[in-house]
Amino acid sequence: MAGEMLAAVKTDPAPGATKMMNVSKPKPGPGEVLVKVRIASICGTDVHIYKWDDWAKARIKPPLIQGHEFAGEVAELGDNTTHVQVGDYVSAEGHVACGTCYQCRTGQSHICPNVHIIGVDRDGAFAEYVAVPEENIIINPANLPLEMASIQDPFGNSVQTVFSADAPGNFIAVFGLGPTGLMSIALLRAVAASKIFAIGHVNEYRMELAKKLGADHVLKASDDLESMVLRETGGRMVDHVLEMSGSPEAFNQGLKILRPGGGMHVLGIYADPFVVDVSSDIVTKGIELYGIHGRRMYGDWYRMAGLLTSGKLNLKPIITHRFPFEQFLEAMEVMKSGNCGKVVLFME
Amino acid sequence: MAGEMLAAVKTDPAPGATKMMNVSKPKPGPGEVLVKVRIASICGTDVHIYKWDDWAKARIKPPLIQGHEFAGEVAELGDNTTHVQVGDYVSAEGHVACGTCYQCRTGQSHICPNVHIIGVDRDGAFAEYVAVPEENIIINPANLPLEMASIQDPFGNSVQTVFSADAPGNFIAVFGLGPTGLMSIALLRAVAASKIFAIGHVNEYRMELAKKLGADHVLKASDDLESMVLRETGGRMVDHVLEMSGSPEAFNQGLKILRPGGGMHVLGIYADPFVVDVSSDIVTKGIELYGIHGRRMYGDWYRMAGLLTSGKLNLKPIITHRFPFEQFLEAMEVMKSGNCGKVVLFME
Amino acid sequence: MAGEMLAAVKTDPAPGATKMMNVSKPKPGPGEVLVKVRIASICGTDVHIYKWDDWAKARIKPPLIQGHEFAGEVAELGDNTTHVQVGDYVSAEGHVACGTCYQCRTGQSHICPNVHIIGVDRDGAFAEYVAVPEENIIINPANLPLEMASIQDPFGNSVQTVFSADAPGNFIAVFGLGPTGLMSIALLRAVAASKIFAIGHVNEYRMELAKKLGADHVLKASDDLESMVLRETGGRMVDHVLEMSGSPEAFNQGLKILRPGGGMHVLGIYADPFVVDVSSDIVTKGIELYGIHGRRMYGDWYRMAGLLTSGKLNLKPIITHRFPFEQFLEAMEVMKSGNCGKVVLFME
Amino acid sequence: MAGEMLAAVKTDPAPGATKMMNVSKPKPGPGEVLVKVRIASICGTDVHIYKWDDWAKARIKPPLIQGHEFAGEVAELGDNTTHVQVGDYVSAEGHVACGTCYQCRTGQSHICPNVHIIGVDRDGAFAEYVAVPEENIIINPANLPLEMASIQDPFGNSVQTVFSADAPGNFIAVFGLGPTGLMSIALLRAVAASKIFAIGHVNEYRMELAKKLGADHVLKASDDLESMVLRETGGRMVDHVLEMSGSPEAFNQGLKILRPGGGMHVLGIYADPFVVDVSSDIVTKGIELYGIHGRRMYGDWYRMAGLLTSGKLNLKPIITHRFPFEQFLEAMEVMKSGNCGKVVLFME
Repeated sequence: MAGEMLAAVKTDPAPGATKMMNVSKPKPGPGEVLVKVRIASICGTDVHIYKWDDWAKARIKPPLIQGHEFAGEVAELGDNTTHVQVGDYVSAEGHVACGTCYQCRTGQSHICPNVHIIGVDRDGAFAEYVAVPEENIIINPANLPLEMASIQDPFGNSVQTVFSADAPGNFIAVFGLGPTGLMSIALLRAVAASKIFAIGHVNEYRMELAKKLGADHVLKASDDLESMVLRETGGRMVDHVLEMSGSPEAFNQGLKILRPGGGMHVLGIYADPFVVDVSSDIVTKGIELYGIHGRRMYGDWYRMAGLLTSGKLNLKPIITHRFPFEQFLEAMEVMKSGNCGKVVLFME
Repeated sequence: MAGEMLAAVKTDPAPGATKMMNVSKPKPGPGEVLVKVRIASICGTDVHIYKWDDWAKARIKPPLIQGHEFAGEVAELGDNTTHVQVGDYVSAEGHVACGTCYQCRTGQSHICPNVHIIGVDRDGAFAEYVAVPEENIIINPANLPLEMASIQDPFGNSVQTVFSADAPGNFIAVFGLGPTGLMSIALLRAVAASKIFAIGHVNEYRMELAKKLGADHVLKASDDLESMVLRETGGRMVDHVLEMSGSPEAFNQGLKILRPGGGMHVLGIYADPFVVDVSSDIVTKGIELYGIHGRRMYGDWYRMAGLLTSGKLNLKPIITHRFPFEQFLEAMEVMKSGNCGKVVLFME
Repeated sequence: MAGEMLAAVKTDPAPGATKMMNVSKPKPGPGEVLVKVRIASICGTDVHIYKWDDWAKARIKPPLIQGHEFAGEVAELGDNTTHVQVGDYVSAEGHVACGTCYQCRTGQSHICPNVHIIGVDRDGAFAEYVAVPEENIIINPANLPLEMASIQDPFGNSVQTVFSADAPGNFIAVFGLGPTGLMSIALLRAVAASKIFAIGHVNEYRMELAKKLGADHVLKASDDLESMVLRETGGRMVDHVLEMSGSPEAFNQGLKILRPGGGMHVLGIYADPFVVDVSSDIVTKGIELYGIHGRRMYGDWYRMAGLLTSGKLNLKPIITHRFPFEQFLEAMEVMKSGNCGKVVLFME
Repeated sequence: MAGEMLAAVKTDPAPGATKMMNVSKPKPGPGEVLVKVRIASICGTDVHIYKWDDWAKARIKPPLIQGHEFAGEVAELGDNTTHVQVGDYVSAEGHVACGTCYQCRTGQSHICPNVHIIGVDRDGAFAEYVAVPEENIIINPANLPLEMASIQDPFGNSVQTVFSADAPGNFIAVFGLGPTGLMSIALLRAVAASKIFAIGHVNEYRMELAKKLGADHVLKASDDLESMVLRETGGRMVDHVLEMSGSPEAFNQGLKILRPGGGMHVLGIYADPFVVDVSSDIVTKGIELYGIHGRRMYGDWYRMAGLLTSGKLNLKPIITHRFPFEQFLEAMEVMKSGNCGKVVLFME
């Protein structure tokens, strides 16, 4: 039916509770555009909502269509749009910033305190159509493959993290081998980090992927990292640590293998506060620590387009599973298992 | 007697245990110069050694002449010196770096892992003469007052901390009103921070000094800082926090009053590891945190000379007590009381 | 009459050709707000248009109401505005950026190649009312004096220039003692530059003002600058040069007095291309040179508000002449003479 | 004979005038080490001296052994050395800095105004042995190939230039396809610049090499660069220009193809001052321009070691000619022809 579309709807405040169903096609409001979704990918955040964990309980108000990683074509323009055209090949930044706070007015809208997130606070892209503010629309290069276009939102996390460090020719450790950690490894490889140490936990599938994407050394958190890093860096220790695991142990281990004057770049989210040896591990070593959230709007997106179309970055192995949108629930189960990289859904 | 000098000697591994006595005048070794000390000041570190706390027990090997803040005249040159001359009016950087490690070879010798500290690991300046590597010698501008010349080492801590932040026209909070915190306040005043919030604990003497040196708001840690800062910054919160108290509560309070995207600059040393809410207070707010140690060698010293001779910085009130060197033990008691700013000793 | 207002209208493409006359009060378009102007100040650009020089001939399409430096109250809101309120005390950024180009989308809208300038490309503030895009509106702090609020646009040029340098405790030279150079001197004074060298040409009035605003040494371009700077900096030469004169001789003189590794910060506009000794004066000395245009949108505005309300910056002497708006043509003559700082007009 | 060695000696102040002859083996002075040279490479500077151009006439005092690019083994230690050992596999930084000036004391010794250059101001490495200050010695990683070890000094120029820009994912143009330009292209390729535009003049050999080393587009200065770059960057123009040609036309062309807010990175040396359109090409576009000289001591050397041993940088094609040291004069003729990349000499 013309006014309807297929969507994956989180119907109730409970684990799972997601149904493939027909709903009304959204109308783009003033300043918004309607995108016909051609591909979407599943984020770890989507799994949190699916599982209905504590964070989800506090934040999510069902019914909700999730999904903020996608690409498609502009199908319709709302009032007062200025430059996007029907037919444009687009993706979108998932953070809808307020535009008027100190952060938004000074180039830091990625940490706008009034942010609304697509697929979290408003309906998202696990559907045939999604309405998005024109401001958030990214016009993709014509030669950007659909799968790469879809994963730009999470890849943007890797981009912000990696470029907050000084990687080329330096020693870098990555803790956490989820998709963001894995894409960071591919990026570190692409910008010629001297040695990339990838530290995982127990998931052999992802440790294998880390190797494939360019890690020089793939280790377990239970290994004697300090001795190993000391030896492999000629006594210098690593110049930067990217903490993407969300594990307090990894955070503290990361600080231990960092050289004096090194950088700690933290994208991981921790379930609870935890103990840090601030004096010995940060202050007297002169460490710089960066909290990383989202993607720089929109510098990181331009850089991504440049990287993804350059032929100098090999991100393909990160896409490990492809499903037609109708099999959304199966795709979600694969994500839950952890035995995957990025999982993508095709709407057509 | 020609070959002897008066010195304050920590004679034994015990609290106090410091005697004013005659000892042999040191001979400058190769690459060293001998300085006739005219003024010296007492650092918090000196109090730790005097009190013989756990840190001191682990690090200090009596007998030791303490003291690393001083000014004087070059009296004698060792072999192989290159540019310092007898009669030069000098002070010295207290950190003797190795010169050959990664840090030393890349402009970060202030965090050299092989550092030796004057007055801690080798004899220092609480004496009529002190031998110092020529590399560490700072030739003072002729118009730099003796008292200002003496306190450059600790003022350099303030300089490194303040200039790791972006203070002019911004909102800044300083936790900890010891001499380094107080000098930071004077410096923030001198570079036109918009509002300076000084947060102390219980010491009224130092809260009074904070006001005198330029703090716009002097508060107690027990005040409702968040509400107060929210109101005084028009809802923005502070742009930078300088944590100089060494108190875990201050550290965490500091993170709470920081705006998203703000900077946390930590010079404080904490007795023990402590709990930090890394996710909420650092990661999702996009905070940058800097561990600060020592002084940039020697960029911070050049900047200090420029500031101290400019007439645009009012650091004078920080010198609250003056003693002849012979009354060293009395001076130390004043320092222990905490009811002081900087305490200086005159050798002549 | 209710629908009319008094305005200074450049009526024809000719020198002068400006009339005080009643015109229709503008209506704010969608996304715009109407400001009741209370004060406006005259920019050097306004003088160029008044004199009808080559630049003006190529750019300006009379009839035009000039003026982009002002403060006032919001009188009316157009459609689709979001956060500004009627009655707000405001000023405005004069550059209306396109919002969609690479520069605008990456925090560099101050150099948007599609910019339109208020009072240059669209009607401005030499009138009782001016319509401005809400995006460009700056809500002023309530305690910001009217005269300071009016001159923020040009002061923002000084702010961007000064903060592209590292002034505190360093040696700085300012070439060009027009209002932007003079305000830079006041700012350098406020952030404790060690020595400020102000280099003018022939205008004694402005050299006097430079001294009043905080210059340590006021010199003429015809003086032997190199010897003087060499002596006053102890052989180091200056760390940064701010070139605000628009004179090729000053540009090249500036490079000569810069130390190796120093910074050259150029806001001046030159009538023609000119000869530069790139090898000797820039390359082998490792100089960094910054072209400065406009004001960072809107970081520089927040910093300005912080500075101007801090009580730590003395900008008052820069306002040398005050006129009621009706005497606009007399005010313009004072500006043409050059014997002034900023000239302000009061609309009420 | 034990005390003699073979050397290429510039014997007289005239073109050519270089003889292969036996001379006394140098003795390392205090703080120096003697290196047995195993490989050396010829720099453009060496060709200038060989040809005896105006610069050489003013600077060089024959007799002189040239050569500052080399690798070898430490054969003997002078007095007062501290950490280098006999047998170490080493190269050396060619700039012998004074160690006591403002630049040397603040991490900028690469632009020390009192520098002496090995093979220019003191005897160099076109010989079986060369004496070098221990401070300048770089201990090479054991797995660094000899040919790569030899070319680190000029590669360091490329490293400093490329890392003064922000290349990954961005559009970069390189003017000048001499060895330094060519190595920059390889480096830009290694760090995933999005598109690399290489602009040469007439030398087909080097344009071929540029392609081989990773340039995406190889152009001639006479091509319509502006239209081409406009099209290939989607209207944005390039983000950074590396000017390595020493041609005034290239410098000005480079500024024209730079986007507003872009960076101009100049290593080229120009025979004479020349005309620049500072207003239109630098100031109003908000360009940042960096003069680049030498290599950061020693951060660039550490980064180089990291890059050269990473396996992620393909610099091999740059070495186009290999000669035994005895054929030095033939090697010099190849360099003069320009139909080459780097030319290396083997001493054994």
